[in-house]
Amino acid sequence: MPGEFDFIQWVCAQQKPDGVALLTAGDDLAVLRWPSNDLILVGVDQVLDGVHFDSGAHSPRAIGRKAMNRNLSDCAAMGCLPAIAVMTVAAHKGTGLVFLQELYSGMREAAEVHGCQIVGGDTGSWEGRLVVTVTILGRDGGISPVTRRGAKFGDGIYVTGPLGGSILGRHMTFQPRIAEGRRIAEAGATSMIDLSDGLSRDLPHICESSGVGAMLDTAAIPIHADAVTLASRDQISALEHAMNDGEDYELLYTCRPGVTDLPGVLIGTIIEKPGVFMSQAGRSDLLIPKGWEHSL
Amino acid sequence: MPGEFDFIQWVCAQQKPDGVALLTAGDDLAVLRWPSNDLILVGVDQVLDGVHFDSGAHSPRAIGRKAMNRNLSDCAAMGCLPAIAVMTVAAHKGTGLVFLQELYSGMREAAEVHGCQIVGGDTGSWEGRLVVTVTILGRDGGISPVTRRGAKFGDGIYVTGPLGGSILGRHMTFQPRIAEGRRIAEAGATSMIDLSDGLSRDLPHICESSGVGAMLDTAAIPIHADAVTLASRDQISALEHAMNDGEDYELLYTCRPGVTDLPGVLIGTIIEKPGVFMSQAGRSDLLIPKGWEHSL
Repeated sequence: MPGEFDFIQWVCAQQKPDGVALLTAGDDLAVLRWPSNDLILVGVDQVLDGVHFDSGAHSPRAIGRKAMNRNLSDCAAMGCLPAIAVMTVAAHKGTGLVFLQELYSGMREAAEVHGCQIVGGDTGSWEGRLVVTVTILGRDGGISPVTRRGAKFGDGIYVTGPLGGSILGRHMTFQPRIAEGRRIAEAGATSMIDLSDGLSRDLPHICESSGVGAMLDTAAIPIHADAVTLASRDQISALEHAMNDGEDYELLYTCRPGVTDLPGVLIGTIIEKPGVFMSQAGRSDLLIPKGWEHSL
Repeated sequence: MPGEFDFIQWVCAQQKPDGVALLTAGDDLAVLRWPSNDLILVGVDQVLDGVHFDSGAHSPRAIGRKAMNRNLSDCAAMGCLPAIAVMTVAAHKGTGLVFLQELYSGMREAAEVHGCQIVGGDTGSWEGRLVVTVTILGRDGGISPVTRRGAKFGDGIYVTGPLGGSILGRHMTFQPRIAEGRRIAEAGATSMIDLSDGLSRDLPHICESSGVGAMLDTAAIPIHADAVTLASRDQISALEHAMNDGEDYELLYTCRPGVTDLPGVLIGTIIEKPGVFMSQAGRSDLLIPKGWEHSL
């Protein structure tokens, strides 16, 4: 039976030192020389079998790509450049070397597109289901990071693409909006977040962090064809799918009025009054968040 | 029922920006300004319920401490200073807020002892058992990191403390040898590793990385009282427990002869011939590794 060191040996052969990573996998820690003056942006995200993917239905390569792309999407949401990643895998006993190599290859493929290198990790086996985590280190590269806390009264609210129905497949295959995030940050966006929990839950994060409210123009919210497909199957409208479904991984951001050539569409305005409101046909209603939250 | 955002809100209140961490938890990524000229050392380690701890027997605080201390031990093994950590928790549904707060408090307690700050994380719930990961960022702080690859013919082999029988309890309560690691690195150690998989498995890592072999002086290997206790219960000798049991988290290192005032005891010599040998009463035998490895 193959052991963790067979996998580690294979992984080590995939990783090569470069200007930033002086020492990659195969030691207790990797050693990095960070580009001088660049800020480090760091975060971590996990994917769990049966929650974020289904190991019975999705290929290990697709699972690896999603694990990495969720983290790259966090980089997009700050407007930074992904640089370095480390990962953990808790594999079900008997998973085998080929599955893990495919999983790793999916992570590496997704990372390399954006110039990000995997430099280390930890692999274990257990009786439980598959857990994959990725920790990402990004750098500002001369553009100030965009947080969730700078939205101001009068700012426009934008989203980079159509929303809803990602469960039909896009939640596994989305592309992190790295290039868009850089353009948005460079244009001076006042706040930004990636839509992982759903618009109705993620927009309140921006509002609460910034101490403001939001008025959404219901008719302007871009609805994905997948939301329409889902609506035809259940009792929930396409608009509700667009508002509440998670894992779109589009960027939601705010910007001072008058800035042109921004990626995406204008869907509302930041207001002083706390809360998120939906305006439609001359009336406005308080929005009740229905997006995703893990219950503990 | 409490949700992940209740926990996140509580965690955010525990974390405070400082000179390195400009922005802590509560955004897509934390933002760090790294001390100029310092190298970054980065790694990640996971603990799995039923493998590294038993959530039925160990308190959440003890589990949190172990998750953090394993990573701090990797810093010790490179001779670097722990600085920043991020973590993930995959909790069984219904775990509750208090358990998670205790878990986090254990991590924070262990980190703060060594000046390390937790700046972010990801929390999820699922039907599976508890998984905790910690990613650690260390800095060299003016002392060159010690890798596994510098051991040379004639070097002495040292260990910082007695080995074996950690399963009796020390595997949960060990103290990472941060101060010892700094002293060893400053003294010019040629290679170092922390003993997590057992001496018989970890010493070959140094030998293979360095392209050398090792001759251990069997009589010099320090045996922990726990190894003696275990030996009195099973058919395995205390020496074998000291050689093969995992999770001692003492430091194993090599140093040129003639360096004095090193922490720990001399247990052998680096030789040119590949392989690890045990010398006893005038004869030497090849050592077969029996330490811990995850089968995949």
